[in-house]
Amino acid sequence: MIPFNKPFIIGNELRYIEEAVKSGKISGDGLFTKKCQQFFEEKYKFPKVLLTTSCTDALEMAAILCDIKPGDEVIVPSYTFVSSANAFALRGAKIVFVDSYKDNPNIDPEEIKKHITSNTKVIVPVHYAGVACDMEAIMNIAKDHNLFVVEDAAQAIDSYYTFSDGTKKALGSIGHFAAFSFHETKNIIAGEGGMLVINDNKYFERAEIIREKGTNRSAFFRGEVNKYGWVDLGSSFLPSEIISAFLFAQLENLDTIQAKRIDIWNRYLQGLKALADNNFIQLPIIPEFATNNAHMFYIVCRNYDERTSLINFLKESDIHPVFHYLSLNKSEFFLKDNLEIDIPNSDHFTDCLLRLPFYYELSEEQQQKIIQRINTFYQNK
Amino acid sequence: MIPFNKPFIIGNELRYIEEAVKSGKISGDGLFTKKCQQFFEEKYKFPKVLLTTSCTDALEMAAILCDIKPGDEVIVPSYTFVSSANAFALRGAKIVFVDSYKDNPNIDPEEIKKHITSNTKVIVPVHYAGVACDMEAIMNIAKDHNLFVVEDAAQAIDSYYTFSDGTKKALGSIGHFAAFSFHETKNIIAGEGGMLVINDNKYFERAEIIREKGTNRSAFFRGEVNKYGWVDLGSSFLPSEIISAFLFAQLENLDTIQAKRIDIWNRYLQGLKALADNNFIQLPIIPEFATNNAHMFYIVCRNYDERTSLINFLKESDIHPVFHYLSLNKSEFFLKDNLEIDIPNSDHFTDCLLRLPFYYELSEEQQQKIIQRINTFYQNK
Repeated sequence: MIPFNKPFIIGNELRYIEEAVKSGKISGDGLFTKKCQQFFEEKYKFPKVLLTTSCTDALEMAAILCDIKPGDEVIVPSYTFVSSANAFALRGAKIVFVDSYKDNPNIDPEEIKKHITSNTKVIVPVHYAGVACDMEAIMNIAKDHNLFVVEDAAQAIDSYYTFSDGTKKALGSIGHFAAFSFHETKNIIAGEGGMLVINDNKYFERAEIIREKGTNRSAFFRGEVNKYGWVDLGSSFLPSEIISAFLFAQLENLDTIQAKRIDIWNRYLQGLKALADNNFIQLPIIPEFATNNAHMFYIVCRNYDERTSLINFLKESDIHPVFHYLSLNKSEFFLKDNLEIDIPNSDHFTDCLLRLPFYYELSEEQQQKIIQRINTFYQNK
Repeated sequence: MIPFNKPFIIGNELRYIEEAVKSGKISGDGLFTKKCQQFFEEKYKFPKVLLTTSCTDALEMAAILCDIKPGDEVIVPSYTFVSSANAFALRGAKIVFVDSYKDNPNIDPEEIKKHITSNTKVIVPVHYAGVACDMEAIMNIAKDHNLFVVEDAAQAIDSYYTFSDGTKKALGSIGHFAAFSFHETKNIIAGEGGMLVINDNKYFERAEIIREKGTNRSAFFRGEVNKYGWVDLGSSFLPSEIISAFLFAQLENLDTIQAKRIDIWNRYLQGLKALADNNFIQLPIIPEFATNNAHMFYIVCRNYDERTSLINFLKESDIHPVFHYLSLNKSEFFLKDNLEIDIPNSDHFTDCLLRLPFYYELSEEQQQKIIQRINTFYQNK
């Protein structure tokens, strides 16, 4: 059986959990949480990182930091995970869904422009498959209209964007805030887990407070205040050290993991290129301004029925690809308060995009089988 | 050095984490999450249990399930952890703080009655130190005024309440909802972690949806709907299987842990009883309707200054007791929108209550040293 995903232990995960227990502290913000945060801050030049229990929680922290109030509008791609929208809906925002590019699931800046009103407060670009949205265009729109940009970088660890002046920056370091995921399907995993990146130092202190249940406990432990108490809204957004210890062991092996994933990605590309050249399928596009973090390999089928046939065909060989999001503008929750609108490219990816098995322990032999079966499927089409 | 708290590994914690990874699933709601939930449902007759990433998150789920809207009033003891209030404040509730009993930090039902208005929607009894609030009185008030009761049972695992008709029920099974914690300071630990108990089956389905980011994913996996999507508000409240695996190993040893903690509690009682008899300190009160889960051993000093002297005296012997909450009605956040009010018993516990070191691996020898030093402190008073 070749599953879509498979979690893995690569190094000292269990030993570090034991170490954390022995250190006398496994609640949040212990030694391993600090090691992980420091790792990210140094490697990707993130000004401040706070680990969270999930990417969803990081997005919720961003929503509180943006001071979302009922009536504020937040622009989100329709082709995304529900949390990109939910985190802002929880604070009372009106979600404004916009379309992807025709040939790339990322949000189209031209579509963003069309949907800005005097109530718009935040743009949420989602770096689909870890491939950068056009951040220069998006940041310019945000500057023109005085908006926050919250990067949904759930899939975008170790991925970069190059500006037109040649400056290259890690995804997550460009908007005001960014949210990453360490869900078991991501490149670096902790089962469930995430982090918030804060790129503007004027939000550092409040972010710490919100994450510590609305208390100034972090400042207290640094000796900046002489007692701590309830000063703001907040929640318990910080993960157990058991999670951070597991995560840190993965981070120590980031380069190994990434090298292996790039190989897997390139093998898929080589093995399926002929099908794309013959227009049976469409392959992922990596724009010139983006890098490839090998988070995901997807194909876009010609239509919904052909995708369904392909899924069934592969399942007969015990290969388990999976489709992805359903256009959120068509969800039951959105349609309670909104009229149906047409967002065609998002619908196209909803119907036709298919993600292939992709995980650290996927063997070359397994991958050749997947590639061979897909080619066989299209032989008589 | 005798710290206030010390986390511990008691059995198969690491082996189960490894098993979870090998099973192919470490995101939420895997095998170990289900095992933990089933354990609690069977042992304590909880109708439905959902593990969460923290007790705070379980309280937030309860607030969404109670449909809290701006202007709704929620009655909370002033002497409690910030999350008991914050979870409802996040949904826009007005928090109404009320006082504890004079000789017991639990909420006083007579004080609850005085603060009910036409806007009251929820009462949040907090079972301080795992000792039951007067749930019969509180449930009667709730029934009379058609209110929700959300038990903050963070500290109350394995603790019971006996009704006047002799019926004995586990704490957490009495209100509409209850929230428990597995923070490293609790009897059963996962570093950070929690669970929501749902006692009314009319909320089962919505609770699952809210916990799964507002999607009906759980129903989908049971085959009840043929696709899943965004149907409600929600968040990512479910913990990683790494957490659940660790927790399940602890649960397998619940009886051993509880037996040891009861011994520790009783040794403190014996060793400090004479000081209480001579009115130097006050000891915990276990009302007749309550049981003792040995979560915490605290003493109440005669005044703030004496408590400070005692803390300093014990620290000289490398013993680290800690005080607890600060009256939330005096917090900066509450005073932004509210006038200062007088809640005297809460202030008394804020100033005078002191928690003694208490953890599974605390040795008898260490404990005798603590008891001896406290007695020495009072010798010349």
